[in-house]
Amino acid sequence: MNQFEAKVFVRLRPSVLDPAGEAIKSAANKLGVDGISSLRIGKLIEINIEGNKEKDIEQNIELLCDRLFANQVIENYDYFVKRLDD
Amino acid sequence: MNQFEAKVFVRLRPSVLDPAGEAIKSAANKLGVDGISSLRIGKLIEINIEGNKEKDIEQNIELLCDRLFANQVIENYDYFVKRLDD
Repeated sequence: MNQFEAKVFVRLRPSVLDPAGEAIKSAANKLGVDGISSLRIGKLIEINIEGNKEKDIEQNIELLCDRLFANQVIENYDYFVKRLDD
Repeated sequence: MNQFEAKVFVRLRPSVLDPAGEAIKSAANKLGVDGISSLRIGKLIEINIEGNKEKDIEQNIELLCDRLFANQVIENYDYFVKRLDD
């Protein structure tokens, strides 16, 4: 069995409003940080998982994204899987 | 003025429990995905910002991380800044 590390990024779809991001953007302005044209908040999911082949791991991660991590009506995701050296 | 893209990753400190991550981990088991040794949920913040020098942008992003994005008692962060070609 090999150890893998997967990172999943879940973002709101571009067409979906992000009120939390907007609030932080205006707080940033008040702190004196100008020039922000967009600020959006998403989720980062980091998984350590063991398995035989990278392909199996990717299949499993995709299943988890579809079923658990992302609400595909309003979110999309991407991910990458890296094998950890023992 | 140049356009930059910053990505900030905010993670719970390793010593802090992540009950939401644990819940997803056991839901993953029920979906038939085995072998997950750890699953933790963090935040991904993506910012488009304009400025002159990459160094200024990094300073601003660090300020935002300290003051707005991360609660440093329980979270830590890292980030990277990339210049977008016009």
